[in-house]
Parts: sequence; C-alpha cells; structure tokens
Amino acid sequence: MKFELNTAISVLKNTPVVVKALLKDLPEEWISQNEGPETWSPFDVVGHLIHGEKTDWIVRTRLILEQGPEITFEPFDRFAQFKNSEGKNLQTLLTEFEVLRKKNLEILNSLKLADSDLNRKGMHPELGEVTLAQLLSAWVVHDLGHIVQISRVLAKQYVDEVGPWTEYLTILNDS
Amino acid sequence: MKFELNTAISVLKNTPVVVKALLKDLPEEWISQNEGPETWSPFDVVGHLIHGEKTDWIVRTRLILEQGPEITFEPFDRFAQFKNSEGKNLQTLLTEFEVLRKKNLEILNSLKLADSDLNRKGMHPELGEVTLAQLLSAWVVHDLGHIVQISRVLAKQYVDEVGPWTEYLTILNDS
Repeated sequence: MKFELNTAISVLKNTPVVVKALLKDLPEEWISQNEGPETWSPFDVVGHLIHGEKTDWIVRTRLILEQGPEITFEPFDRFAQFKNSEGKNLQTLLTEFEVLRKKNLEILNSLKLADSDLNRKGMHPELGEVTLAQLLSAWVVHDLGHIVQISRVLAKQYVDEVGPWTEYLTILNDS
Repeated sequence: MKFELNTAISVLKNTPVVVKALLKDLPEEWISQNEGPETWSPFDVVGHLIHGEKTDWIVRTRLILEQGPEITFEPFDRFAQFKNSEGKNLQTLLTEFEVLRKKNLEILNSLKLADSDLNRKGMHPELGEVTLAQLLSAWVVHDLGHIVQISRVLAKQYVDEVGPWTEYLTILNDS
C-alpha cells in the first residue's frame, strides 16, 4: 500500500480513542504492570506517545519543510515519560495525549501538503536521510505498534490463568 | 494476576469499542488486506469474533454450569467467518459483534457466578479438562490477541513506506 495522507490521518486520529477504550475501567494494577525488567506498562506507553507528540513527529515534519536535510533532527528521548508522567494519573495522560494529537493533526492539515512535499528530505540522527512520507508512515506504524504493545501487556496479566489454552493463545509468548 | 470477573468483564466490554475505533474511516483495501496466504484480514477477524460470540464462550460457560465435564464442548469452527461474512460490509459486522457481545455480557452477569463456580469444570475437545476461570480468562486473552492481529495487519500496509524506520518498528516483522 502506498502512503496516502488521508488514510494516515484517519489512523492517527483513531489512536487516542483506541488507547482510551483499551484501558477503560481497568484496575490500577493492570495499568502499571509491564512485561518484566526494562519493559513498559500501558501507563509508560501513553507517556511515551505524549512525548512523541511534543518532540517528534510534527516537530520533524516542520523541520523537513522549513530546513530540509541540512539540520539533523533532535534525537528522540525514549525514556522521557518516566520523569514526565511522574505524579500524573492515567486519565490525565490520556486527555493530554488526545489534546496534543488533535492539535498536531490540525497543524498537519494546515500544512496543505502536496504530493511533491512528501518527497522532501530530512536528516535523522541515526537513520540518515529520510523523506517526509517515510516520517509520516513511521508515525502511523509507531502508533499501531504501541497499540499492539498495550494489548499484549494486558493479555499477559492472564498468562497463568488460561491453563491449557496457552497453547492456542500465541500472544502470551510474544515479546 | 489472578482471574477477577469484574476486570474480565471490563476488557470484554471494551473490545467492540476498540475494534470499531481501530478501523474507523479506513479505506476498504485496508480492511480487506491480510498478511499473506492463509492469514486473516481485519474483516475476517471481526467475523471470527462474531462466530465466537455465537458458538464459543457463553455457550461453553453454560455447558460447564449445566452439564459439567461429562459433555464435551462442540469444536469451534475457525473458518466459519469466510462463509458467514459473505456479502456483508464491515459496519454490519461491527454492529453485529457489538450487539452479540453486549447480550453475552448480560447473560454472564445474570449467571451471578460465585467464586466456587469459577472452579467448575468442562471438557474441551482437544485441550481436555478446563475450568470456567480458564475459559473466561481465555476469552479475555483471545480478544486482546485479535486486537494485536488487526493492529499488526494495518501496520504492515506501510511496510514499504517507512524506509529506514523499519529497523525500529519491530511490529513490521511480527507474524
């Protein structure tokens, strides 16, 4: 499937609704459990998504359009959520994510990107030269990857509870 | 985490909302794409979830409570959706799933399960003896596994679009 801006925007718009629905009415222990050392809980993931809205996708989109590949993107801090989410509760984070995403999609729409803009280039600090279409595609896939992660972490709460069904439920062995 | 009926019901209640939100406003080709031969599209998965509501989880719950392990569960048809979903569109399936799940959770609530009921036993045609708690835990994990599957299939639409980001986006290599 070729990158298509309207479809990408649909997925990006859906994510806050999906994440909120996935975590609705779940007890605090389910929100804060992870998959073991150096893995993330659903709470951590929402904080990470927020940090992406603040420092990654739209910031880099603008940098590509305004500066091109001469200015390298700021490296993304994959651990910022551990400090930034401190003392906040899940509802606060979910609302923060929802508001930031809405604002960022408004910015994206306001850029009125032409097809030719999608080929414009930026410089990633580790990956090297990338195009705007690649950045926006990665934003979409990144969202879906973290929906997978949250769902998997939740599923693993019942790893010892499903008994012989573990054989059929391959998600319990994923990492 | 030990099985806990209220939490299980929360997850089961959330699933139709999550699936609907994941697929909202996506083009038909995204709904019908799968991951290759003998894999399922999001459309197929929703049909499979519907068939589970009709023939699997609540039917087996009742069988455990009313008959115990003397009567073996009917084998579940993993391919029923290919016939049953024929000629239907996604919106119809999503509504059907939502209505059936709501009805089944009403039935589950009406059973007023006591802790002791959760240890009651049934007979699975392949897995042998199982408990009601294991069946209900498997229902929860099964839901989350299919949310993972739908998210992964969607993400893979952009496998060729993310360029060098493919290295970071491990979901693209999952199966």
